[in-house]
Amino acid sequence: MNIYDIAKLAGVSIATVSRVVNDSPKVSEQTKEKVRRIMADHDYTPNVFARGLGLGSMNTVGIVCPDVSDIYMAKAVSYLEKNLQGYGYDCILYCSGYEEEDKQQAVERILRKQIDALIMVGSDYTYDTGRSDSYLHHVAARLPVFLINGWLSGDNIYSVLADDFQAVYDAAEELLFAGKRKILFLSNSRSYSAMRKLEGYEKAHETHGIPVDRELILYPENAVYAVRDMLLRKRGLHFDSVIAATDELAVGALKYLHARGLRVPEEVNVIGCNNSELSICCEPELTTIDNRVEALCRTTIDSVMALLGGDAVKQKQLIKCHLVRRATTDF
Amino acid sequence: MNIYDIAKLAGVSIATVSRVVNDSPKVSEQTKEKVRRIMADHDYTPNVFARGLGLGSMNTVGIVCPDVSDIYMAKAVSYLEKNLQGYGYDCILYCSGYEEEDKQQAVERILRKQIDALIMVGSDYTYDTGRSDSYLHHVAARLPVFLINGWLSGDNIYSVLADDFQAVYDAAEELLFAGKRKILFLSNSRSYSAMRKLEGYEKAHETHGIPVDRELILYPENAVYAVRDMLLRKRGLHFDSVIAATDELAVGALKYLHARGLRVPEEVNVIGCNNSELSICCEPELTTIDNRVEALCRTTIDSVMALLGGDAVKQKQLIKCHLVRRATTDF
Repeated sequence: MNIYDIAKLAGVSIATVSRVVNDSPKVSEQTKEKVRRIMADHDYTPNVFARGLGLGSMNTVGIVCPDVSDIYMAKAVSYLEKNLQGYGYDCILYCSGYEEEDKQQAVERILRKQIDALIMVGSDYTYDTGRSDSYLHHVAARLPVFLINGWLSGDNIYSVLADDFQAVYDAAEELLFAGKRKILFLSNSRSYSAMRKLEGYEKAHETHGIPVDRELILYPENAVYAVRDMLLRKRGLHFDSVIAATDELAVGALKYLHARGLRVPEEVNVIGCNNSELSICCEPELTTIDNRVEALCRTTIDSVMALLGGDAVKQKQLIKCHLVRRATTDF
Repeated sequence: MNIYDIAKLAGVSIATVSRVVNDSPKVSEQTKEKVRRIMADHDYTPNVFARGLGLGSMNTVGIVCPDVSDIYMAKAVSYLEKNLQGYGYDCILYCSGYEEEDKQQAVERILRKQIDALIMVGSDYTYDTGRSDSYLHHVAARLPVFLINGWLSGDNIYSVLADDFQAVYDAAEELLFAGKRKILFLSNSRSYSAMRKLEGYEKAHETHGIPVDRELILYPENAVYAVRDMLLRKRGLHFDSVIAATDELAVGALKYLHARGLRVPEEVNVIGCNNSELSICCEPELTTIDNRVEALCRTTIDSVMALLGGDAVKQKQLIKCHLVRRATTDF
C-alpha cells in the first residue's frame, strides 16, 4: 500500500494525498476526511516521499545516467539541471555505469536521498528482453520514474522517447533510394533505443524488398579508434554506406574510410546519430540524425512538473527526429 | 568564530574538533576537555557542518561547474562522481553558468544542502583581477573549498592546477624552434588558467627575443563555427601556426584553414588543448596539450579525503601537462 494506491482508492491525485498529509489549507475538509479514513483503513503511514510532495517537498530530483562524460548524456544532464533549477528543484546526480548490478545499486543509493522524482537518462536502463527491469517497478512504487529515451510499461513510469525507429527507417530509405545496397549498420548496445534503430534499418530493407546482410550489422565499442580498428581487421567487408547509432561510431567509420583511401561521399555515404559536436569536427562534416535530446529533456521536465503538481501525464511520449544533412551524404 | 578557529586555538585538526562534537571514542578525554573548554570560552555552537564532519558526516560533496555539457567539465564531473561514490560520498551537482551573479547564486544554493565539501570545476571561478572572488572566502569560512584548475589564496581554499603556463610555454617554444614567427593565440576566457596560458605564450616569445604581435591574440566564442567565421572575417590576418586554449577553438581554426585551402601541417601548424575526443575526430588529427583532467580530479579527491580525515593538505598543487603529438604539427 503506497501513496498511489491511496490516491486511487480515494479518487484523487497523489498531490492531493500529499496535501492532506501536509494538512494543506488548499484541500477541503470533506476530501481530507475521506483520504484520512482510507489511510487509516489501510494502515498507511505516509513516508518521506509523501511528506516530500507538495507543500513540504524536498524540491530535489534524482538524475541517474550511465556516464556523464558521454556527450549525449552530458547535454541531457546539463539541460535537466539548468531547467529544474529554474523550477526551484535541486539535482542529485548518480553515474551508474553500464553494468546491471551497478545500475541497481545507483538507484538504491539515490532512493536513500529524499527526492521527489527520479529521472533516468539514456536508453541503457530498459531492454527488449525485459531483463533486469523489475527493480524499476519497485522504484516506481515509491516515487515517479521518468525515462529519457527508455521504455518500460508500468504504473508510475513515464517515458519520453525519440522516434528512433522512424529516424533510421527514413535514413536507410534515403540510402536505398540513392541506389545503395550494402548499408553497414553500427550499433553499440542492445538497449530499447538501439533495438528500435535496428528495426528501422531492417524494416526499410523489407519495404524495398532488399535482403539484410547480417554480416553488415556490427557492434563495436562506442569509441572512434575502436570502430576504425574493427573495420580494418575486417578488410574484406564490402559496404557502400553506413548508418551508425552514434556520432562516435560514424566518425570511427570515417577514420577507417580515410585510412583505406575511400572517398566520402563519392564512394561511401555515412550517417551518424545524435547531432553532437563531433559531427561538425570531422572532415567531411557528418550527416547525422538529430534525436533532439533537448526536446526530450524539456518534455520530461514538463511531465515531472505536471505530475508533481497533481496533473495526469502520458506514459509514453514520442518525439520526432530529423536528419541534419552535411557533407558525408550526396542525396 | 568557526570550526577552523577552534581547531587552530586548540592546536588540533578540524576533524578532531568534529570528533569531539560528535563525542567520538577515538579522541582522548584530555583533548576533548581542551577542545570543549575553548568552544565554551568562545561561545562556539557547532553548526551543521561541524556535526556533518567525521562520524556524523552527511557524506555528500557539492560539485559546481559552469556547464556540464562542456566536454572538459563533463569528463571532470564524471570522474569526480564515480570516485567519490567509491568513498561512499554522494554528489550534488549545480551548473552555475558563466555569469558572476549566477555563479554566486549557485554557490549560495548548494550551501543550503548539507555538504561536507565544495568542489568547483574549471578555471572560470577565479580571475587574476580578484573580482568577485570574495564570496569564495565567505564559503571557505563554512566549509572547505576545492578549486579544480582555479587559484585563490585564502584559508580553507585548496587548488589543484594544471601547469598551463609551462605547457603553453613549451608548445610555443617548439613552434619557435621550428621557425614559426606568427603564432595565432586563441583563447575564450580571462580565467586564471587562460591567463597562465597567455603568459606562457608571451614568455616563450620573450625568451627567444621575438616580439608578440597583439593582433594575433584573439578571443572568439568557444565554438567551432564561431572561430572559423571570425577568422574568415579577418581574412587579412597572416599566421603560420596556432595555439588554442581549447580543442574546440583549434578545430575551428582547422575549419578556417580548410576553407581557405591552406595545408595543415605543411603550411600551418595547429596545437589545441584538453586532449578531448574532438582532437581525434578532426582531420588531420590534432596535436593537443593533455592537461590531465583526470589527474587533477584524482588529486582533488585525495585532498578532500585527507582533509575530511583530519590531515593537512597543500593549498596549491601543480600537475604537469604534456603534449600529445598528432598530425597538425610537423616537429
